[in-house]
Amino acid sequence: MNYNLVMLVKEKNTFTQFDNNIISQIENIVGKKNIISDEEGVYAYSFDCAHIPFNKKYPRIVVFPENTLQVSEILKLANKYKIPVIERGAGSNHAGGCAPVKGGIILHFSKMNKILEINNEDLTCKVQPGVVVGDLQKAVKDIGLFFPPDPSNLAVSTIGGGIALSSGGPRAFKYGTFKDYVLDLEVVLADGSIIRTGSQTVKNVTGLNLTQLIVGSEGTLAIVTEATLRLIPAPETTNVMLAYFDSISEAVDSVSAIINNHMTPSVIDLIDKKTVQTIENFYPTGLICDKEAVLLIEIDGDVASVRLQQDKIATLCRGYGAKHIDCANDEEHRQKIWTARRSAFGACAQLAPNVITEDVVVPRSKIAELSKGILQISEKYHLITMVMGHIGDGNIHPNFALDLRDAKQKQNFELAKAELFRLAVSLGGTLSGEHGIGCQKANFLPLALDKTTLNLMIQIKKVFDPNYILNPEKML
Amino acid sequence: MNYNLVMLVKEKNTFTQFDNNIISQIENIVGKKNIISDEEGVYAYSFDCAHIPFNKKYPRIVVFPENTLQVSEILKLANKYKIPVIERGAGSNHAGGCAPVKGGIILHFSKMNKILEINNEDLTCKVQPGVVVGDLQKAVKDIGLFFPPDPSNLAVSTIGGGIALSSGGPRAFKYGTFKDYVLDLEVVLADGSIIRTGSQTVKNVTGLNLTQLIVGSEGTLAIVTEATLRLIPAPETTNVMLAYFDSISEAVDSVSAIINNHMTPSVIDLIDKKTVQTIENFYPTGLICDKEAVLLIEIDGDVASVRLQQDKIATLCRGYGAKHIDCANDEEHRQKIWTARRSAFGACAQLAPNVITEDVVVPRSKIAELSKGILQISEKYHLITMVMGHIGDGNIHPNFALDLRDAKQKQNFELAKAELFRLAVSLGGTLSGEHGIGCQKANFLPLALDKTTLNLMIQIKKVFDPNYILNPEKML
Repeated sequence: MNYNLVMLVKEKNTFTQFDNNIISQIENIVGKKNIISDEEGVYAYSFDCAHIPFNKKYPRIVVFPENTLQVSEILKLANKYKIPVIERGAGSNHAGGCAPVKGGIILHFSKMNKILEINNEDLTCKVQPGVVVGDLQKAVKDIGLFFPPDPSNLAVSTIGGGIALSSGGPRAFKYGTFKDYVLDLEVVLADGSIIRTGSQTVKNVTGLNLTQLIVGSEGTLAIVTEATLRLIPAPETTNVMLAYFDSISEAVDSVSAIINNHMTPSVIDLIDKKTVQTIENFYPTGLICDKEAVLLIEIDGDVASVRLQQDKIATLCRGYGAKHIDCANDEEHRQKIWTARRSAFGACAQLAPNVITEDVVVPRSKIAELSKGILQISEKYHLITMVMGHIGDGNIHPNFALDLRDAKQKQNFELAKAELFRLAVSLGGTLSGEHGIGCQKANFLPLALDKTTLNLMIQIKKVFDPNYILNPEKML
Repeated sequence: MNYNLVMLVKEKNTFTQFDNNIISQIENIVGKKNIISDEEGVYAYSFDCAHIPFNKKYPRIVVFPENTLQVSEILKLANKYKIPVIERGAGSNHAGGCAPVKGGIILHFSKMNKILEINNEDLTCKVQPGVVVGDLQKAVKDIGLFFPPDPSNLAVSTIGGGIALSSGGPRAFKYGTFKDYVLDLEVVLADGSIIRTGSQTVKNVTGLNLTQLIVGSEGTLAIVTEATLRLIPAPETTNVMLAYFDSISEAVDSVSAIINNHMTPSVIDLIDKKTVQTIENFYPTGLICDKEAVLLIEIDGDVASVRLQQDKIATLCRGYGAKHIDCANDEEHRQKIWTARRSAFGACAQLAPNVITEDVVVPRSKIAELSKGILQISEKYHLITMVMGHIGDGNIHPNFALDLRDAKQKQNFELAKAELFRLAVSLGGTLSGEHGIGCQKANFLPLALDKTTLNLMIQIKKVFDPNYILNPEKML
């Protein structure tokens, strides 16, 4: 990879080498109020939720564009001087996807955070990338519509992040991920050109599917400045239940039985004992803490159907060994269960200074084997590990609690991570379901992709971004 | 576009210039029994369902590969000598996507037509591209699973065709199109390399999404030799109803009301009076022929829910002016309604020697305007036109019945087609929902895509196929 990054901060101590003239030009584009360029100010944007410190490389400047034309002007400038550009929403990426590992410009989308349109007739909405996912969900719910992708941190994570990673969260089993809801994107290419990639319609085979190529590309191909998303009619009602088991394989068997009985819950999440204990300790809601596995099952649809399915699922789970079923009986109860579930990541922070969330994915039939393997790897490397994830779609997020300041623990974690990835791939799975490759997993790509495939991806990257300015050293 | 097609038949009368040595090499790869190379034999593969005769360009040879390695060897040869390669399943494409407009090799997948695996636990199947969609639907239904994409000609059209066009048919409103069910592809690249593009898992953001780039690319980027498809639990039951209206806009309003009442039917199709009359004349099932518009609505789910929704929908439709509702009361009745609907294209053949099916798509709120416009255009150019389509997803298939041997009619149709495309684009829609661009609409692409976007697509095409051998002059 042949970058010419003469303008860039290569190390922290070369910070001041960035050409002041470029900073002035950026100021001219977005205005002084929309940049941060002092060392203290940019520090906060030198890392993301991946928790492995990249802060030896600071961005030189953080830019808060207010519209697409400003993004276009910034990219023209960056492309001319071959300056890295990293898009950023909430910065809640778990794979170092937002980390400016080559310095450069952070494009921060907090000022492009408007819901531009909700079209009740066509079931679409137009949004800017900085819109918070939870805010969009609320806005469309108010008029009887539904935007299913549901990252756990939906109170902060943005539409732009969801598009960059095609995240889905728990509801992907029934409803798919971001990619299934993006109809059209307005993007700015590396050279500053502005294009639209799709149409306002659900069906569209007019030309190559650039939309789907850009969704999940982690900001390496183009910068998304607007998205048209598909909405669906909101289900009439939703309910949630917890089923407690003595083993993970009993939980897995119950899931197969539910599916074999023609039911498609909106969520089927698995939470292991250690995770349940940690959550209950942090946010007590009466979770039962001595069972090996809990299934969190959410069902939606019309009232009669949800009640019927709930009863059927309870019976099936009991038949496969469930020791206790806790079915929400009102909205407050439902919210309590969900708040407990969503606090899992935060709760883990009690256990050690750092919590690292992984994101492997395997065919559902391999979940029991994967979970067993994760616990074996953790034991081997003396790591505190909590297994949870979206069992319906085979996407497991083990949380590792450790102290990264301890060199031995850090080394052990790196070894464990490599084993985890090899295990997932050997089970027919892959490295990332929805957190992306970022810089954390880039070295592991050859585990999952052969040389020809990787080379093809690199050639495509070059078509979009010949100067390699868009989120360099991420994924490709 | 700089092709070097020295080996190719440029006109019918240069047919014999194809190098016999290349034919021998192809024979060595697949065996004599797996080729057709005589002039009478290849004639049948010189066109597809687009009905505009391309038969002045014959393929030089039709090859029936039995496995991926044979496909790879053929592509190595074709790439070396820069010979066009056109993949073909049932040849039921409506846009000339299978027509060998530059001669060359037809790769016919009728011998790679096996369902290799149905995985009941992971809800996936592995299939070869020659599998007929209807056969796969039956095979998975037998074990309680469901493959929703449902092209109207599902008795013949193949998985390979569905992937090439991301077709969806009537059920796309609820269930999406082929692209939403393809998890992984084995493809052969233009140089003969064999790669896999995805994984066996529903969630996957490990590298760029080559799977989705290839789905819908009409055989212009790579040749698909195997696909892993996502299945879903089969709904417990399905029912279908017809609602008859005095105007298309009443029908459109009813659809909005259904959606606003939290219901997601699996199918919402619109059939206009002329189409209903034509169907009833061809295959009498008691359709009411004097109403301007009919909605065909299919609901699926559990028994109680389907009954409830059916009643609600009937009430809503009546409220918006439905004069008659015909609800299937048993499986036989249901099949009869569907057979009538599926026979629409065939029925139109009564009216004129040629029937041309178009495939525009607009936001659903523009359906009434589009339908009105189609009828105005038809009147202007004296064409017999039947309007029908998947109103739920805005995908309208007008059928034009005409005699292409009549130069005036042919010219009129070409003018009408151009107006139709301009109308669809002006309403915020696009040229093709699921039939593809093929060679029929390639000239119209600039209507829907700007120069920068088209150029980006051409650059991507070059990465995959630098010698421009894969389905040349289609789409790009």
